[in-house]
Amino acid sequence: MKKYLLSATFFFCVFVSFAQTSDSAVIRKIYSEILVNGNAYEWLRQLSVNVGGRLSGSQEAEKAVQVTEIMMRNSGADSVWLQEVWVPHWVRGLKESGKIIDAKKKAQDVPICALGGSVATPAEGITATVIEVHNFDELMKLGKEKIQGKIVFYNHPFDETFITTFEAYGEAAEYRWSGPSEAARYGAIATICRSMTNAQDDFPHTGSMGYNDSLPKIPCAAISTNGADLLSRVLRADAGTQFFMKLNCEKLDSVLSHNVIGEIRGSEHPEEIIVVGGHLDSWDTGKGAHDDGAGVVQSIEILRTLKALGIKPKRTIRAVAFMNEENGNRGGRKYAEIADNKKEKHVAAIESDAGGFTPYGFGMEMPDEKRMLVKSWAPLFRPYLVWNFEDSHGGTDIGPLRDRMKVPLFGLEVDSQRYFDYHHAASDTFDKVNKRELHLGAAAMAAMAYLLSVHGL
Amino acid sequence: MKKYLLSATFFFCVFVSFAQTSDSAVIRKIYSEILVNGNAYEWLRQLSVNVGGRLSGSQEAEKAVQVTEIMMRNSGADSVWLQEVWVPHWVRGLKESGKIIDAKKKAQDVPICALGGSVATPAEGITATVIEVHNFDELMKLGKEKIQGKIVFYNHPFDETFITTFEAYGEAAEYRWSGPSEAARYGAIATICRSMTNAQDDFPHTGSMGYNDSLPKIPCAAISTNGADLLSRVLRADAGTQFFMKLNCEKLDSVLSHNVIGEIRGSEHPEEIIVVGGHLDSWDTGKGAHDDGAGVVQSIEILRTLKALGIKPKRTIRAVAFMNEENGNRGGRKYAEIADNKKEKHVAAIESDAGGFTPYGFGMEMPDEKRMLVKSWAPLFRPYLVWNFEDSHGGTDIGPLRDRMKVPLFGLEVDSQRYFDYHHAASDTFDKVNKRELHLGAAAMAAMAYLLSVHGL
Repeated sequence: MKKYLLSATFFFCVFVSFAQTSDSAVIRKIYSEILVNGNAYEWLRQLSVNVGGRLSGSQEAEKAVQVTEIMMRNSGADSVWLQEVWVPHWVRGLKESGKIIDAKKKAQDVPICALGGSVATPAEGITATVIEVHNFDELMKLGKEKIQGKIVFYNHPFDETFITTFEAYGEAAEYRWSGPSEAARYGAIATICRSMTNAQDDFPHTGSMGYNDSLPKIPCAAISTNGADLLSRVLRADAGTQFFMKLNCEKLDSVLSHNVIGEIRGSEHPEEIIVVGGHLDSWDTGKGAHDDGAGVVQSIEILRTLKALGIKPKRTIRAVAFMNEENGNRGGRKYAEIADNKKEKHVAAIESDAGGFTPYGFGMEMPDEKRMLVKSWAPLFRPYLVWNFEDSHGGTDIGPLRDRMKVPLFGLEVDSQRYFDYHHAASDTFDKVNKRELHLGAAAMAAMAYLLSVHGL
Repeated sequence: MKKYLLSATFFFCVFVSFAQTSDSAVIRKIYSEILVNGNAYEWLRQLSVNVGGRLSGSQEAEKAVQVTEIMMRNSGADSVWLQEVWVPHWVRGLKESGKIIDAKKKAQDVPICALGGSVATPAEGITATVIEVHNFDELMKLGKEKIQGKIVFYNHPFDETFITTFEAYGEAAEYRWSGPSEAARYGAIATICRSMTNAQDDFPHTGSMGYNDSLPKIPCAAISTNGADLLSRVLRADAGTQFFMKLNCEKLDSVLSHNVIGEIRGSEHPEEIIVVGGHLDSWDTGKGAHDDGAGVVQSIEILRTLKALGIKPKRTIRAVAFMNEENGNRGGRKYAEIADNKKEKHVAAIESDAGGFTPYGFGMEMPDEKRMLVKSWAPLFRPYLVWNFEDSHGGTDIGPLRDRMKVPLFGLEVDSQRYFDYHHAASDTFDKVNKRELHLGAAAMAAMAYLLSVHGL
């Protein structure tokens, strides 16, 4: 019995070792193909330079759907299709304006932009005394008496002690999302929110916010970090400082848009699907290069690479460019709804939505036994400096697949230091993306998708 | 006996665990201090914006010595001093020029720059037929008959399949270093070398070259990657294409310069020294931000941080800004010579000379038992995403400490993808450095220096 066990163990080890040798050779080919011949960078140029910012419901978003469909076809996908998604249509309007007005009525322009989903100010703008808070505790303590009729200024900086910038974002973003309604609870008439960024500059960073329907809906804007520091200084000198803000944003009727999908059918288990994806929409302020043109073109690059290398995956690999992650996640929800209704079997879903930076791991949301299997593949990624398989994060677009169908999720983990410098701001442009960093991300995703297609999960 | 062993093991584990808990708390403080209050970024602004490019022997290098001495004093170092170093003084001269001259005698400017150490062309320049080779094999096969009287064009691109860009550099750099003399061996009258970079742009990248004294010394220049591709295309269309190049560089008499040194004396073993360093000189084409202003300011930041936190290291921590790494390594050699003559005990030396990018590990040159001790500290670095302790590379400046005194070396390993985009080119400027990435590198070095100061090696 013992001997038998030993032999079985031996053969298992030989088998694993042989399988990993073969997998390792394929992964080396995938990396070389993408690093030398990868087209993701040029596709990203099309999305972020030729199309540009592409907020859900906009003409640019529609153009992005068309361009992405062509890219999917050019990747060599076996089939490409669009999936209808109704998306919200919020527009910024022209000529947003913010001014600090000091005791002598001297006005100084500061860069602001409406938060996504904000209501407009009256046409003539709002001018009111500003009250600065750093967190909700301070807001609560000030109470109605101090806040009524004023503009609340949330000046909550990123906590720089976190090592990954997503941790700082996670902590700060609640002031953007819930800040307006929390301030309205005490009678504020508008809010200004310090931009969610590590950068010290003049770009205001937008992002989604959500109103509490039981409270008055007040206009809300982001202010650049330089602007926030200036406002804070002026307020320290004169607590009676006023702020002028004018926002012309508007919520229009929903618009019919699309997820763009392309796939390579599995040779042995075509009914088993591995999703790779990113989101096609972006905020209107920037050009959606890192957020998330990167994830879209990396996903399409996976299809191109498999075709170019003549690799026929055993299971289906499907690239999805999701619409409307930024302000609704309607694309992610629609995709999961259709997959669920069709009883499609999804082995796993991998999302890249942390920018086109150097990858170092995969966040994973899945049961322990699946995580253990994936971790057994870690040595295959080590030569590519992808080493971290300990964290838990999938992605917003693929979240509904987990919620509805318990699909295991992977989120590509990349160097996060520069991401929030550009995130949701006018600085999120093509020139901020390094070709090799973008392509290394595509290669890591392609390697993981390949392994999932061979071994299942 | 068994019981005794168990107890001993238990106490040893408790001890190790306790020691690591205490180390871990100090390292957390070091990271927080640098990420929140770090001054390295502002010091780098002084070096790379206010001083700028600072080639050995130049006025800017002298100014850099003065500025760095002040930075060292401002860091709170217990003592600061200069160490005399005689350095070579090569100057580029004004108005370098390169032109492709096609069959119709039409000239097209292309960006070139002299390699460091090159002789000048005649004042009127050189015009000659170009012969393109990709490696020394091709050169040898062409032989004297085909090469005599021509300009050899080394068009050896970076191999993009390597994962770290230093591997590609290691392979390509021999054409820059030895290319001129190897071509002169067959009668070439000048060489042009494709820039050592992953970037596709118009910046020529300089760097050191060395003549073989037994062969004619011919002028040699780097050409931008766009220029190299253009020249190659034109040559394919017309093998008789000529190239015009004019270089005005000159080697002047050696100049007295300095290493800049500051240290915090050890509280228990002041005679045991841990060096942290980078090099102060840079090429003249750029501003020496990543290469290697970063390493200098990170090293000074370590002293500032220990002082700010009131940490008294048991062993001496000494920051060294080495002069003349780029074209002579005289600073590194002089430092080791003096240390050796004084019989100083150097526990270890840590260099940062791979740019101010996100760190992920330390290369190590040391015997296995020392490497094992360092690897036992790996869990302390894991929360900071510094994980790789497998590679072997120290640094050029600290190399002589290994050669003369067997000092264990550490080289800070950072994300390498963008380094050669800027390396030795006009694009190596302050704006290419991300504050957090730079500061994370300083923190990783500070943590390692701290551990070495506590535990020795």
